[in-house]
Amino acid sequence: MKQVRIGLIGTGYMGKAHAIAFRTVATVFPLSGKLICEMIAEVDAKLAEQKAEEFGFVRSTSDWQELVNDPNIDVVDICAPNHLHKEMALAAIAAGKHVYSEKPLALNADDALEMTLAAEAAGIKTLVGFNYIKNPTVQLTKDIISHGEIGDVVHFRGIFNEDYLADANSVFSWRLKREFSGSGTLSDMGSHIINMAHYLVGPITQVCADLQTVHSQRPMADDTNEMGHVENDDQVHMMVRFANGAIGTLESSRIAWGRKNSLWFEVTGTKGTLIYDQERLSELQLYTVKDTKNHQGFRRILTGPEHPDYANFCVSAGHGLGYNDMKAVEVRDLMEGIVANTPLWPDFRAAYQVNQLCDTAELSHKEARWVSLE
Amino acid sequence: MKQVRIGLIGTGYMGKAHAIAFRTVATVFPLSGKLICEMIAEVDAKLAEQKAEEFGFVRSTSDWQELVNDPNIDVVDICAPNHLHKEMALAAIAAGKHVYSEKPLALNADDALEMTLAAEAAGIKTLVGFNYIKNPTVQLTKDIISHGEIGDVVHFRGIFNEDYLADANSVFSWRLKREFSGSGTLSDMGSHIINMAHYLVGPITQVCADLQTVHSQRPMADDTNEMGHVENDDQVHMMVRFANGAIGTLESSRIAWGRKNSLWFEVTGTKGTLIYDQERLSELQLYTVKDTKNHQGFRRILTGPEHPDYANFCVSAGHGLGYNDMKAVEVRDLMEGIVANTPLWPDFRAAYQVNQLCDTAELSHKEARWVSLE
Amino acid sequence: MKQVRIGLIGTGYMGKAHAIAFRTVATVFPLSGKLICEMIAEVDAKLAEQKAEEFGFVRSTSDWQELVNDPNIDVVDICAPNHLHKEMALAAIAAGKHVYSEKPLALNADDALEMTLAAEAAGIKTLVGFNYIKNPTVQLTKDIISHGEIGDVVHFRGIFNEDYLADANSVFSWRLKREFSGSGTLSDMGSHIINMAHYLVGPITQVCADLQTVHSQRPMADDTNEMGHVENDDQVHMMVRFANGAIGTLESSRIAWGRKNSLWFEVTGTKGTLIYDQERLSELQLYTVKDTKNHQGFRRILTGPEHPDYANFCVSAGHGLGYNDMKAVEVRDLMEGIVANTPLWPDFRAAYQVNQLCDTAELSHKEARWVSLE
Amino acid sequence: MKQVRIGLIGTGYMGKAHAIAFRTVATVFPLSGKLICEMIAEVDAKLAEQKAEEFGFVRSTSDWQELVNDPNIDVVDICAPNHLHKEMALAAIAAGKHVYSEKPLALNADDALEMTLAAEAAGIKTLVGFNYIKNPTVQLTKDIISHGEIGDVVHFRGIFNEDYLADANSVFSWRLKREFSGSGTLSDMGSHIINMAHYLVGPITQVCADLQTVHSQRPMADDTNEMGHVENDDQVHMMVRFANGAIGTLESSRIAWGRKNSLWFEVTGTKGTLIYDQERLSELQLYTVKDTKNHQGFRRILTGPEHPDYANFCVSAGHGLGYNDMKAVEVRDLMEGIVANTPLWPDFRAAYQVNQLCDTAELSHKEARWVSLE
Repeated sequence: MKQVRIGLIGTGYMGKAHAIAFRTVATVFPLSGKLICEMIAEVDAKLAEQKAEEFGFVRSTSDWQELVNDPNIDVVDICAPNHLHKEMALAAIAAGKHVYSEKPLALNADDALEMTLAAEAAGIKTLVGFNYIKNPTVQLTKDIISHGEIGDVVHFRGIFNEDYLADANSVFSWRLKREFSGSGTLSDMGSHIINMAHYLVGPITQVCADLQTVHSQRPMADDTNEMGHVENDDQVHMMVRFANGAIGTLESSRIAWGRKNSLWFEVTGTKGTLIYDQERLSELQLYTVKDTKNHQGFRRILTGPEHPDYANFCVSAGHGLGYNDMKAVEVRDLMEGIVANTPLWPDFRAAYQVNQLCDTAELSHKEARWVSLE
Repeated sequence: MKQVRIGLIGTGYMGKAHAIAFRTVATVFPLSGKLICEMIAEVDAKLAEQKAEEFGFVRSTSDWQELVNDPNIDVVDICAPNHLHKEMALAAIAAGKHVYSEKPLALNADDALEMTLAAEAAGIKTLVGFNYIKNPTVQLTKDIISHGEIGDVVHFRGIFNEDYLADANSVFSWRLKREFSGSGTLSDMGSHIINMAHYLVGPITQVCADLQTVHSQRPMADDTNEMGHVENDDQVHMMVRFANGAIGTLESSRIAWGRKNSLWFEVTGTKGTLIYDQERLSELQLYTVKDTKNHQGFRRILTGPEHPDYANFCVSAGHGLGYNDMKAVEVRDLMEGIVANTPLWPDFRAAYQVNQLCDTAELSHKEARWVSLE
Repeated sequence: MKQVRIGLIGTGYMGKAHAIAFRTVATVFPLSGKLICEMIAEVDAKLAEQKAEEFGFVRSTSDWQELVNDPNIDVVDICAPNHLHKEMALAAIAAGKHVYSEKPLALNADDALEMTLAAEAAGIKTLVGFNYIKNPTVQLTKDIISHGEIGDVVHFRGIFNEDYLADANSVFSWRLKREFSGSGTLSDMGSHIINMAHYLVGPITQVCADLQTVHSQRPMADDTNEMGHVENDDQVHMMVRFANGAIGTLESSRIAWGRKNSLWFEVTGTKGTLIYDQERLSELQLYTVKDTKNHQGFRRILTGPEHPDYANFCVSAGHGLGYNDMKAVEVRDLMEGIVANTPLWPDFRAAYQVNQLCDTAELSHKEARWVSLE
Repeated sequence: MKQVRIGLIGTGYMGKAHAIAFRTVATVFPLSGKLICEMIAEVDAKLAEQKAEEFGFVRSTSDWQELVNDPNIDVVDICAPNHLHKEMALAAIAAGKHVYSEKPLALNADDALEMTLAAEAAGIKTLVGFNYIKNPTVQLTKDIISHGEIGDVVHFRGIFNEDYLADANSVFSWRLKREFSGSGTLSDMGSHIINMAHYLVGPITQVCADLQTVHSQRPMADDTNEMGHVENDDQVHMMVRFANGAIGTLESSRIAWGRKNSLWFEVTGTKGTLIYDQERLSELQLYTVKDTKNHQGFRRILTGPEHPDYANFCVSAGHGLGYNDMKAVEVRDLMEGIVANTPLWPDFRAAYQVNQLCDTAELSHKEARWVSLE
């Protein structure tokens, strides 16, 4: 069996989520190749060593470039902060490695395009961590739409709201500076709902957006009086028009009290409607006109073994997947794409299109007008 | 006790809802005056007579002008189709009657302003049937916001979706022609969610809207092949900015499969969030940061006797009000405003502001830009 | 049109609910007869007069026997406290009146049977106010079961929980004394869920019950230190076996914090399942194996004009009925049964069967064994 | 770091779930010891080898006794069919191994007691796979009850319903024969809700149960006409009394259409109520009288990093755990109990108490009476 040796850069929030997926994927799924947890890079050598132990990796380094250039690495997995994605990805591509990167791919569309073109020129595989679309429930949603069960899509309302910065006294962080994070909730969370819209409804051709920074200053640390200046958006919403004629709204907020992981959408078609909320990630609401007229209603489908990928996790319906399970599906895709040399999605190009929409939304807001995407 | 004699024009959908409220209001609420169901006007004399019997009215006529000018009528209640509101209201005002009108007040803002100025000049009382704001649950929402319990409002997402025209083969009707109905879902249902936004968050200063007619032709009748041309919007959404700094989106659709009466809103503040869905009209979801940190969550408050007006319907909590009950609250307001000569809301001016926003949204869509409201 | 003249005894909680229904029924429904609100009896003459005014009745009296024997009364409507039902009903029957009574019919099965036999001998119409079964949503439930859509019923779980006495410091009342109320939550609320089980699944043949008084003493009034001794059950549950082979549990509590009007049931059949919660009284959850296997799920049907009786209240779906609307359906039934001389349900005999099950449950608890109903 | 070497018997449904937990636990949690996936036993040698590869185990065997007696095994993990638990556990105990077993521990209480006494005499650690209580949401439930936040528990309604045998044509299996499975849904799923009741409310002292086999025959295979005779219960419910004075009902069904993994409970106390549904395993509903009177309602708490164990899976709230994640918590407990030599729960004694209640329920049903547990 072909070996696929992973080099993981970054062991924080997302690095750990990736590691859990690497550990579990071969037990959950039948794989065509053998995944090897080869090397970890982390800024501090001691931490790198400790994380290699915890995450079950063979080796570790404090120098991500060493990892990128190591001949025994097949895939470079980038879980470092957003502003480092570009340099790392370009180095990995130059070294002929496949690249698995967290989202957003880059701080802006230009960078994302540069990375995309480099990857395509090099012929390596890329995959970007828009994990929510890997959920069996969301795959089922896609299937239902693709089979025409809700007819032609006429409206899409997509929301991704959380409250992790709703407290005005939340401590300042790198996420709030454009230099390190680009836009705010737009690229951090909005990118997920944009990718979801692309996945479920298709290309977006026009956008008109409004962004707002509600809390323009935040304390530098819990115990100081110094304030940091917030440089990007707390909340954003936009109207969009899809290539297929549907219209919709996309919205994201990091200050929406009570919303914890509310990636939420409603897809309305000419024959039915689908509703999804990531906070109940194993449920899909389906309304279809095929039901007898006086028996119509939104039907809560609990994901089960009849649906894509679910049975690998559990043979009984409704037992529920968790957040980390979606990463296992994503890593399964990565493995199969590399071993069988088949296309991966969302690749860098798909992620570039997300960055492009983010930039277009910012332009639209700045100039207070509708902007078309070429 | 002062008598308030009602003259009802129109006995269809809304006329019946009003009649039920007239019949029940004195039993539900302690009133300062005595409501008399005096006269009904309906185009057909026989139908008028029959409805007077069913609705418990003393007299009937096939001539609405006779009703308007009858000396024994104190309030003219307009439940006729939208395009007739203006003429009837102006006639009633000229005759010195108080006017209770269904919404939208007029087909456009100019007409609405003319009616408003006439009413204000005459010094009569006006009330427009935006009944959803009369729901005890919505009154509670208003109270919670007013008392600062969710802090400063930063975002409002308002939706009013139904599926009454989602079937592409739904028969053509007067509602689909601008001459009789003005805009489509925008004025029919959107007007309710605009009024709700005004009620809960305050004046809107800027709007950018998108409208779409999805089904541009509909069969003239079930059994013909003739098609009628639809002249107004099936779905609309807009971004808005409020005078108080909050931003938001408003949306309405008459083709949203599965949504039956989904007047839905989420009001996000700096200290909490409120969510409401008219399809569960006795429930309010409240999230507040005042709760212990590890015990926070959206709380489903079932309306009960502790909340405004509820106890008059039932002394036990959670027993649930229905659609017609909101009209009883509205009629109670009408009665008290007239008897005590106190302000009523939403009056013609408030309804004019709704019409004004509808017109502004259409302009915004036509010119593909943000438009300010003076 | 035949006149049906109502004499209402009692103007408290239920008296008001009946009055609202009397006021509204002819406007909501096409009726075969003419309902006349003729006379009110209330212990205090002044209160009786005031309520007659509010409720729209012609006359009033402080002597219920005067009402019962008045030749211009066709129906005696008993909304007095439970321990008075028997005397009043027997007097009304003796006077040849039809009787409309609140539930529970009597304090025990013996009394209920005596009343039933008297009514049947006199040939008058009787109807008992188990209003929850009159809800269009519940009628739809019955229809679905009757048409075999969920196959053979195999299980019924019925609950009726509220929290109106959950506070241990709730003031003592007549409801807590056997002399005035009979059993506690069992007859007050349990009677509703028993009637619902009879309506939806049919006769019960065996029962095994457990009852408990959790708060055995309650303060006599808010401002005293005196305590009243509670003589009946705060919570009860029972296992039952139905004549048709299904088994089930019935439960009721008046101390279930958070439950406001939670008459809740789940009916499981060999081909599907139905779930209902009175706190969302316009929703029915249906699961059916007829749906495509990978699209199965509980479907939330919002009651609308396609369902029994709904369209009379509103021609649009999902607009929602309220608690008082169910009484309007009940009064419509009363009117039609009397005018057309057709059977009414639940009549005294059906209500006697509820009382009988309550008594049997108490016996079962006392003797800690299963007890059969003859 | 102390090594804990696992020997896993059985690689079916539960074996795979355990394997996923073994693979992931050290990445998710900081552990005091090092877990080694040492050996797998499966009846077929080839399958054993394949599963060792997939599950990441070092060795494999087709002889479970070889595994049990292997000196390099510290923990014997029993995921074999129920009727083999006893022999395997006793052999493992005799070999001085710790035992981690799936539930139910045994086919009856006598066997479970024998196993318990053997384990206690040997001084080895035992843990039984009642994984649902390991969910952070359920741990939070326990915390809330323990801290008195809902006052004294007065009622517990526990349900565990699924529909995996609701189809009357489901193929016959070993689970339907007493010889291999003991009782039916009672021990298979009922055991979970009994354990949950023990965990949350404490010991049960009296029980009165009803069991029913609805489908007494099932086809032997999809393509034959032969029928197998079902020897155990399809549905069961019981009334229980707890040592602390609370009463309750427990229910389980394997034929409850629509219910997929509905381990559901409602715990009512004198100051509040908690509701949980395993189908929404990251949500807890809390009602507390501490909330302002007119703001009370069931609050939906989404499990997050403030709650037990959650942060190890994800640092963001509301991202959701899945079914397999609960096994990771269980394995963490196993590891810590063994390494630190601290008590584990639910151990064999706790599992024996579940078996004991199952047997008592069957006796109660057979003799149609309440039965006390010694």
